[in-house]
Amino acid sequence: MPIPPGPFAGRTITDLARDLRAGQVTATELAERALDAAGALGPALNAFVTMDAAGALEAARRADEELAAGTDRGPLHGLPVAVKDLIMVAGLPATMGSRHFAQYVPDTDATCVTRLRRAGAVIVGKTTTHEFAYGPTGDRSANGPSRNPRDPERMSGGSSGGSAAAVAAGIVPLAIGTDTGGSVRIPAALCGIAGFKPAFGAIPADGVFPLSRSYDHVGVLAGGAEDCLIAYRCLTGETVDGSAAGSVGWIDPAGLFDGDPRVTRAVRAVLETGEEVRLPEGFAEEVRETYVAVQSCETAAVHAERLGRAPELFEPEVLERLRAAAEVPGWRYVRALEARERLAGLVEELFGRHDVLAMPTVPIVAPPVDQREFALDGRAVAVRPALLALTSPWNVLGLPALTVPAGLVDGLPVGLQLVCRPGDEPLLFATAALL
Amino acid sequence: MPIPPGPFAGRTITDLARDLRAGQVTATELAERALDAAGALGPALNAFVTMDAAGALEAARRADEELAAGTDRGPLHGLPVAVKDLIMVAGLPATMGSRHFAQYVPDTDATCVTRLRRAGAVIVGKTTTHEFAYGPTGDRSANGPSRNPRDPERMSGGSSGGSAAAVAAGIVPLAIGTDTGGSVRIPAALCGIAGFKPAFGAIPADGVFPLSRSYDHVGVLAGGAEDCLIAYRCLTGETVDGSAAGSVGWIDPAGLFDGDPRVTRAVRAVLETGEEVRLPEGFAEEVRETYVAVQSCETAAVHAERLGRAPELFEPEVLERLRAAAEVPGWRYVRALEARERLAGLVEELFGRHDVLAMPTVPIVAPPVDQREFALDGRAVAVRPALLALTSPWNVLGLPALTVPAGLVDGLPVGLQLVCRPGDEPLLFATAALL
Repeated sequence: MPIPPGPFAGRTITDLARDLRAGQVTATELAERALDAAGALGPALNAFVTMDAAGALEAARRADEELAAGTDRGPLHGLPVAVKDLIMVAGLPATMGSRHFAQYVPDTDATCVTRLRRAGAVIVGKTTTHEFAYGPTGDRSANGPSRNPRDPERMSGGSSGGSAAAVAAGIVPLAIGTDTGGSVRIPAALCGIAGFKPAFGAIPADGVFPLSRSYDHVGVLAGGAEDCLIAYRCLTGETVDGSAAGSVGWIDPAGLFDGDPRVTRAVRAVLETGEEVRLPEGFAEEVRETYVAVQSCETAAVHAERLGRAPELFEPEVLERLRAAAEVPGWRYVRALEARERLAGLVEELFGRHDVLAMPTVPIVAPPVDQREFALDGRAVAVRPALLALTSPWNVLGLPALTVPAGLVDGLPVGLQLVCRPGDEPLLFATAALL
Repeated sequence: MPIPPGPFAGRTITDLARDLRAGQVTATELAERALDAAGALGPALNAFVTMDAAGALEAARRADEELAAGTDRGPLHGLPVAVKDLIMVAGLPATMGSRHFAQYVPDTDATCVTRLRRAGAVIVGKTTTHEFAYGPTGDRSANGPSRNPRDPERMSGGSSGGSAAAVAAGIVPLAIGTDTGGSVRIPAALCGIAGFKPAFGAIPADGVFPLSRSYDHVGVLAGGAEDCLIAYRCLTGETVDGSAAGSVGWIDPAGLFDGDPRVTRAVRAVLETGEEVRLPEGFAEEVRETYVAVQSCETAAVHAERLGRAPELFEPEVLERLRAAAEVPGWRYVRALEARERLAGLVEELFGRHDVLAMPTVPIVAPPVDQREFALDGRAVAVRPALLALTSPWNVLGLPALTVPAGLVDGLPVGLQLVCRPGDEPLLFATAALL
């Protein structure tokens, strides 16, 4: 049974900003609606780890005062926003989804949070993350799995599962998350919303607990691409305006992963346009190996002491994966750095012919919570590699990648992913706007 | 018994260049002297893998013709030079000191060889390298150990052992080598000559078989610092002139390695000047771990397929070390990259107070060939870490480092090492010139 839509379902940032400035609603009322919805929908979705009613209402009051006094911080001014629980918000617990940080309260904001506040956003709470963001399923966290608003028996996807669930359920109009292999785009796609992973480094990762420094990106989740663009502008100061749509190349996802053909058909139908693009021979395998090697080594580097000192505090699946990651030999990391150069060259050639590459975001629909393998057309499909297959290549290459809702398969959302070169974000969003 | 001095012993590049232009000698005669000396001294030292009499005499003839016709390529014009056997010289075998490349003949020159030729140098042959440059002792090579001209029972040091022995024995006035952890400076110091490892990348490593790409440097070996400077200029086009000597800080080598105090005293006596500089707490351990982690992983990445396919072709000690290197986990590589940033910051502070850091090049004298451990003041000293201890930190940090002869201990040469920041090479050489 789908979760009933919350107060922000179907409301865009532009709508809300207009209503606020027209005096039809106050920031305080918006914050109250978000807090109430989180309370009402929260237990079913497990989207939030921590709510900050006092802080949110205080920030909302200031936002209202500023607007009344003529100070307008732009489109996020007075809007409720949720922040993934491994992004530091001063004074709020940051568990990273882990018992290792059950008691941790940072005293400074992450840079992206500072920028949110500067843009007038009202932070209402911290959202569930897969433990240490180390998993695309969103169902292994010290505070339990986040769940899919479309069907709470299904996974939200991860690792920014709580952020996606909170937006998809209409609890908040905007959330921020992190994306190391797809952790913004995967849950956004599985929950039926939009998510944008900017170019590597476009939004600083200072104050974000690392998963894999070479691949960690801060990203945004919202109802649609337009809202992602607005949030991206506010978080970066980038002006991304007035572009024509770009030429689109369609990448058959089967070249990267043998997933659900119904997902491919549904997404292809939404795109309508786009010449077929073939990925170069061997690309899929090389990009997957590169992703795994770098991510494993960098993640193990983050957790080496915790693995030695208090392994029992990790969730068992996370522990098992971390232990395997700690054994990946360094020469594979070195090879992966070399492979990344080659892969970047290959993709650069594809962009010589098309401005935007399009494909499904995830080649399957949301599996049930805790599922790790399932049968598809008589084949066994491993869930984790399936979830990551179409998103992680763009972390390896640091490219801007957007997912937008692309309809339903079996009543469950699927996403269309658009990828471009850094600097071509205007083309990317203009292309999305045409869909 | 020391090897009797060859024709270039005590002759500087400047001397030779003057004699050539004065008509007192021809390039052909110089090449003949080098070839004859290599023939006469070669068996005792095992400095050369391959001699190229035909190529050398042809190049010498052209050099003579050019000089006669008024074309002067500069100070290396017509001078015999030896090249380490993992630097590619078109048409000559490049064994890398390994049975894996017993039959390999490259068809293009390394960039540094192209530059040597452009400077008019006459390449007479390829010098013995420790197998794949993977060892500072110089005594494990498919063509046998190179030996120390001062005492052929002793190791030359390595990995550019043949280059050092050839110069120290006066077979050639100049040789080129590579230095990943000290492979130019260690054999130069142990054999009693000068050796210069420029800043990382100053001499391109294209066409050089890699050991560890982050740390590999091409360097030069000659009788004295002045000749190293001349060769460095010819290989880079850098003008390194007219500087005053820099302020010198003396680093007590005991802060990096507990070596032979007689070596320290001998080197300190040569320097005379220099305020004592303390390395920061923990520097020695961190720089050693950083060196080993990066070097191990990068070296294993170079040889992974050979290790799987034909391990029996490696020399047993090299094989054992490569197998251990292949097991260094990737997270240690990641940590090492982070540590390197910290270490660079610490050393940058030292250079805030002194232009040049001085210390012994190697904290022991040349051990006997094949020795791996010996007793010193009742302690067991492991040879390999001792050889590398004072040189490898400057590979980790990519800093220019020069070794110059600093007398004898027990009748065996010791070296003084001078280190500076990239860009301060004029200060470095001016400081050396004052000694």
